[in-house]
Amino acid sequence: MTAEASLRAHLDAQARPPGSLGRIEDLAVRLALIQQTATPRADRATLLVFAGDHGLTEDGVSRYPSAVTQAMVSTLLAGKATANAFARAVGAEVVIVDAGVDADLAAHPALVEAKVRKRTRNAAREPAMTQDEVERALSSGAEQAAAAIERGAEVVVLGEMGIGNSASAALVMHRLALLPLADCVGVGAGHDAAGLAHKLAVLTRAAERSDATEPLEVLRQFGGLEIAMMAGAVHGAAERNTPVVVDGFICTAAALVAIRMRPEVRDACLFAHRSAEAGHDRMLKALGAEPLLDLGLRLGEGTGGLLALPLLRAAAALMSEVASLDDVLAGRI
Amino acid sequence: MTAEASLRAHLDAQARPPGSLGRIEDLAVRLALIQQTATPRADRATLLVFAGDHGLTEDGVSRYPSAVTQAMVSTLLAGKATANAFARAVGAEVVIVDAGVDADLAAHPALVEAKVRKRTRNAAREPAMTQDEVERALSSGAEQAAAAIERGAEVVVLGEMGIGNSASAALVMHRLALLPLADCVGVGAGHDAAGLAHKLAVLTRAAERSDATEPLEVLRQFGGLEIAMMAGAVHGAAERNTPVVVDGFICTAAALVAIRMRPEVRDACLFAHRSAEAGHDRMLKALGAEPLLDLGLRLGEGTGGLLALPLLRAAAALMSEVASLDDVLAGRI
Repeated sequence: MTAEASLRAHLDAQARPPGSLGRIEDLAVRLALIQQTATPRADRATLLVFAGDHGLTEDGVSRYPSAVTQAMVSTLLAGKATANAFARAVGAEVVIVDAGVDADLAAHPALVEAKVRKRTRNAAREPAMTQDEVERALSSGAEQAAAAIERGAEVVVLGEMGIGNSASAALVMHRLALLPLADCVGVGAGHDAAGLAHKLAVLTRAAERSDATEPLEVLRQFGGLEIAMMAGAVHGAAERNTPVVVDGFICTAAALVAIRMRPEVRDACLFAHRSAEAGHDRMLKALGAEPLLDLGLRLGEGTGGLLALPLLRAAAALMSEVASLDDVLAGRI
Repeated sequence: MTAEASLRAHLDAQARPPGSLGRIEDLAVRLALIQQTATPRADRATLLVFAGDHGLTEDGVSRYPSAVTQAMVSTLLAGKATANAFARAVGAEVVIVDAGVDADLAAHPALVEAKVRKRTRNAAREPAMTQDEVERALSSGAEQAAAAIERGAEVVVLGEMGIGNSASAALVMHRLALLPLADCVGVGAGHDAAGLAHKLAVLTRAAERSDATEPLEVLRQFGGLEIAMMAGAVHGAAERNTPVVVDGFICTAAALVAIRMRPEVRDACLFAHRSAEAGHDRMLKALGAEPLLDLGLRLGEGTGGLLALPLLRAAAALMSEVASLDDVLAGRI
């Protein structure tokens, strides 16, 4: 019997109709396979929020100025952003990683200083990063996941903050999911029709600059430092048999890079929710992923990932804490 | 400005794009309106699992024998059923209410003895309950909700255990949602095609016995003791400005009774998930309800309600714990 068949048989023998927990059963089996144990756990979770700025904002791809990234990092560090509220509500540690914020940030216990450079170059005009910068960002992301796991995290939740990063993610998706750019570009933090048209025009110019389709080169040409670090974090967690909860559009673009680089890490990725950002559903389909939640979120920060966390915990509990039908019928409970 | 407009304005002023949390924003507003406070809470939650047996099982409407109800109540009391595992995973108190189990149950700290009678009469042949029994069950359900709230519950989650209760719920739905019986009858705990056809035939005979469409009379003719108590619990919670999380098919049938009796209690009902049981989606539509989760569950016990609980907590935290954009931009965090 394979490991999966054995886990399914265990669930089927529980004191409830077989299959009656639908996707929670699938999730329980996935967790067990990722953690390589029949008693998976998801109690201790760390949200890693990777923050970075984007040269693309020079050309007006976002409704908000780049400075908002720093302001929101301060808000996250003060515990007053949405991700903090959700993390307290579900029970998760929050760590903010400065991947490439365009400002000097003061030291803070919840801040990891991992800045590769102050924001990427403007991908509409030149490659966003050098080869060395991409590689450093990937390594650093893997290190952040490893550090969280060493501190005890049984699950890593990915999140991001970076004005302009839905533009960068759209370019990554366009090249790695091989979909028309217009199918990848959405309103991000809230463009009107004119703003969306402008964003698409800028990204069309960016895409004309390079015909890259190889994941590392796509990341170098069009990616962001926080996107590269999230891709690295997927690798770092997967290598350590730790599930990675993938949040929304930008996070999924990072997972797409990570998976195209190393297809075997796909199994460690748990897709949390379907974002309201146009393109996310198409990107999920390109990955063959059916997310757990569909609540119209389009914020980022890992908020959707946090909301999926209790489902992982329920799935883990299902695997370990439910009596078998045989024991119930024999009165052995 | 109305209370709702004021709550929406508060959310729109937060340090994130307006509307970026989709249905969690709607949920936050709903919680605030139900609890009549700008700072709703959902930390303390009680799952009330109402258990009862059904005379309809005499005619083979369920794949399982009635005795399984008692066995599962014992499992719930031992903390080894799925609902217990999920309740521990998300943090909720579990109380089992004996509404009408067809056995004498030993006293237990987590068991409330509220038995109206040992199982209902066989609704295929005669009214399931007397008028007095229905009224006692409704009152008792309201009392259980009140007691949980008095112990500190900020949210009541409804669940049920009762072999045969998807048959009873289908009859209730048929009469109160005014849908063809065949659209209301599903596989329940797991019928094959022949079992499903037999169930439909038995319920067709039951439906021919009475043309009731008035909610209390539908409950008397076709309902179950646990269904009546859950309807009462909806009333009891709503009267105390407490949100009621409605689980799956059987629970929704109870909510349907409660709402048809007193339409104003609709606002207190939060529909947790779309069950895989055929008919549940139609019943939700009849109530104009869009549930929070869609995970293919079809177990009952309140398991889907428990999985929705963290979403309520996140929504409550959103209302209270997130900085305004003005404060962030002015550096006041």
